[in-house]
Amino acid sequence: MQQLAENSRHAARALAKLDTTSKNKLLLAMAAGIEQSAAKIITANAKDLAAGKHLPPAMLDRLKLDAKRIAGIAAGVREVAALPDPVGTTISEWTRPNGIRIQKQRVPIGVILIIFESRPNVTADAACLCFKTGNAVILRGGAEAIHSNLALAEAMNVPGVPANSITVVPTKDRAAIDELLKLNGLIDLCIPRGGEGLIRAVVEKSRIPVIKHYKGVCHVFVDREADLDMAEKIVINAKCQRPGVCNAIETLLVDAPLAGTFLPRIEKALAAQGVEIRREADWTTEYLDLIIGLRVVNGVEEAIDHITRYGSAHSDAIVTTNQATAAKFLREVDSSSVFWNASTRLADGGQYGFGAEIGISTDKLHARGPMGLEELTSYKFVVTGEGQIRE
Amino acid sequence: MQQLAENSRHAARALAKLDTTSKNKLLLAMAAGIEQSAAKIITANAKDLAAGKHLPPAMLDRLKLDAKRIAGIAAGVREVAALPDPVGTTISEWTRPNGIRIQKQRVPIGVILIIFESRPNVTADAACLCFKTGNAVILRGGAEAIHSNLALAEAMNVPGVPANSITVVPTKDRAAIDELLKLNGLIDLCIPRGGEGLIRAVVEKSRIPVIKHYKGVCHVFVDREADLDMAEKIVINAKCQRPGVCNAIETLLVDAPLAGTFLPRIEKALAAQGVEIRREADWTTEYLDLIIGLRVVNGVEEAIDHITRYGSAHSDAIVTTNQATAAKFLREVDSSSVFWNASTRLADGGQYGFGAEIGISTDKLHARGPMGLEELTSYKFVVTGEGQIRE
Repeated sequence: MQQLAENSRHAARALAKLDTTSKNKLLLAMAAGIEQSAAKIITANAKDLAAGKHLPPAMLDRLKLDAKRIAGIAAGVREVAALPDPVGTTISEWTRPNGIRIQKQRVPIGVILIIFESRPNVTADAACLCFKTGNAVILRGGAEAIHSNLALAEAMNVPGVPANSITVVPTKDRAAIDELLKLNGLIDLCIPRGGEGLIRAVVEKSRIPVIKHYKGVCHVFVDREADLDMAEKIVINAKCQRPGVCNAIETLLVDAPLAGTFLPRIEKALAAQGVEIRREADWTTEYLDLIIGLRVVNGVEEAIDHITRYGSAHSDAIVTTNQATAAKFLREVDSSSVFWNASTRLADGGQYGFGAEIGISTDKLHARGPMGLEELTSYKFVVTGEGQIRE
Repeated sequence: MQQLAENSRHAARALAKLDTTSKNKLLLAMAAGIEQSAAKIITANAKDLAAGKHLPPAMLDRLKLDAKRIAGIAAGVREVAALPDPVGTTISEWTRPNGIRIQKQRVPIGVILIIFESRPNVTADAACLCFKTGNAVILRGGAEAIHSNLALAEAMNVPGVPANSITVVPTKDRAAIDELLKLNGLIDLCIPRGGEGLIRAVVEKSRIPVIKHYKGVCHVFVDREADLDMAEKIVINAKCQRPGVCNAIETLLVDAPLAGTFLPRIEKALAAQGVEIRREADWTTEYLDLIIGLRVVNGVEEAIDHITRYGSAHSDAIVTTNQATAAKFLREVDSSSVFWNASTRLADGGQYGFGAEIGISTDKLHARGPMGLEELTSYKFVVTGEGQIRE
């Protein structure tokens, strides 16, 4: 693993020298490479499917790659090629009284380790986002997808791509992860994506900075001054539109004066969508299912207290027509995204206009909320003078 | 330590609610508090001086607080009060096609742990920078300054400051640090300041994100096309103006064609300043003294290779009149600050116009280079709609 990471470090130096035009050309070549290798990728995928035939059907379906899905993966790579490149852009610049010019410029981070459990398309997604931002990437996907992941990475390794820019860890051995997580001199950042157990294990072991979210225990608070039609629409969307994702809500907080009006109405509406309502809950569970915790609270202050105590600092919403109440909620709820009169399901890189999303962070350092290309960059200070010294 | 950190967590919530005017008033009150407590602080400092009488005279001098130094500390707090408050400012904002308005707003990080070895004035400095940015701070200074640090923190705890906003760890016990570094659910960030040994120990043990620099092995490369008068001025400044600090250079790289001209000249000039020149060195040592490594390299490429291999990614400079050579150096040297025709001694929050500096980072995540008030903040996405949902 040490050698693998050192190779990635070398690749990072070569990648940092590539200009935007070269990177975009290579990304388009990668997309073509994926299409041309479709048969190889499907053969590799068949090995994974055969080895995984004991897996639940839903998981097998997610693992499966066919011509249509491979075309979709290639299209995703082309979309990233078309996005603006943050590397080399100037974040800010100013001149000091002594005449030195300071430019804060975006640069690649270096080597990024991505640990994930999900579908093989994440391999191509993460690889091309890292490549676009001039970072070398080490990918460690689910053991059940290893042949598919290796075939995808090989297809992306087209002529002109610096050697070892995109590396899939070529072993199912779990000890490899532990070794990689100790290489803080060679790897700059680790992004784990998956269940809470995986992420806690990574944080526990890692000496590399980790950006992550453990889970999404998100809330909608319906204030006494809410537009009730809007509130119903937002609650149903935030719970039901896709219950298995992290920005779906787990708990509905209803303001006490609405106990006789909105409460029976929303209970009926949720039941009509097949949602099970729990009035007694531990309030910290991420159901990822058609289950919702429901609690009556007395005013925005109690709602904020509940979210502070039980929430996961991911995405939380208030529905109200009262601007002062909204302002208090937006200010005091310490979550990566806070919403006023909109659904928490909008907490997403695509919805925010980032063009791509590498993950979501509930951390406070470096990146918070949906992470796009900019969050895969660092910066440096470029100082230009005419002989200035420290007086 | 758990209880201490929980108290800081509560303080962070209260601090996040304070507006800029309130924080600035309280900072001015803290400055007055320090002045009014001068006698108490000097008494506490006398205890530290008595207990530390075995310490080297230079260290005792740095430990000593008198009326003049206390006035200087109070003046520093007033300067921070006068700086702009980054918290609550909007970093960027945009509207999406569906009409939602997204604001990326600066917020406090939360609870910051600062571990340092240096003079007691760091206590007041760090405390007021964290307070200004709405962060609770836990300060762990050198054991030899514990009474001085406790007295300073007490003097800053004026009426109106939320309880436990500024906490000095009230024990010399080293196990306290280890305990604190495990509290990643309660403490958001650790900034260690001191020698490389301290910082490596912190990184090894911490489950809290750490921002740091290990050391400063900085370089000046004098290119064949340099203005030699400028080069001499910059080299002498970068080495001699204050050799004991991290942005002073440790190695001078001279381009081969200058071996007969600039080389003898700079050797003479350095010797005249009392600098010992080493032509054989391990190239990674931070001398922090009037010693310099000197190496002849063949061109900018070799200079970049040397810096990449042996440098600490802190601050590195090129002296040249050739713009293309400079551009190559500025782009390919992966250091937090890179200089063209200016001294590395300018790598400093004050010199960059940040008004204050909490430390310097050679990391790539969150903050790189000199860290001012902005680097003590995180952000959140504030999304405002009129009932928008995910389609």
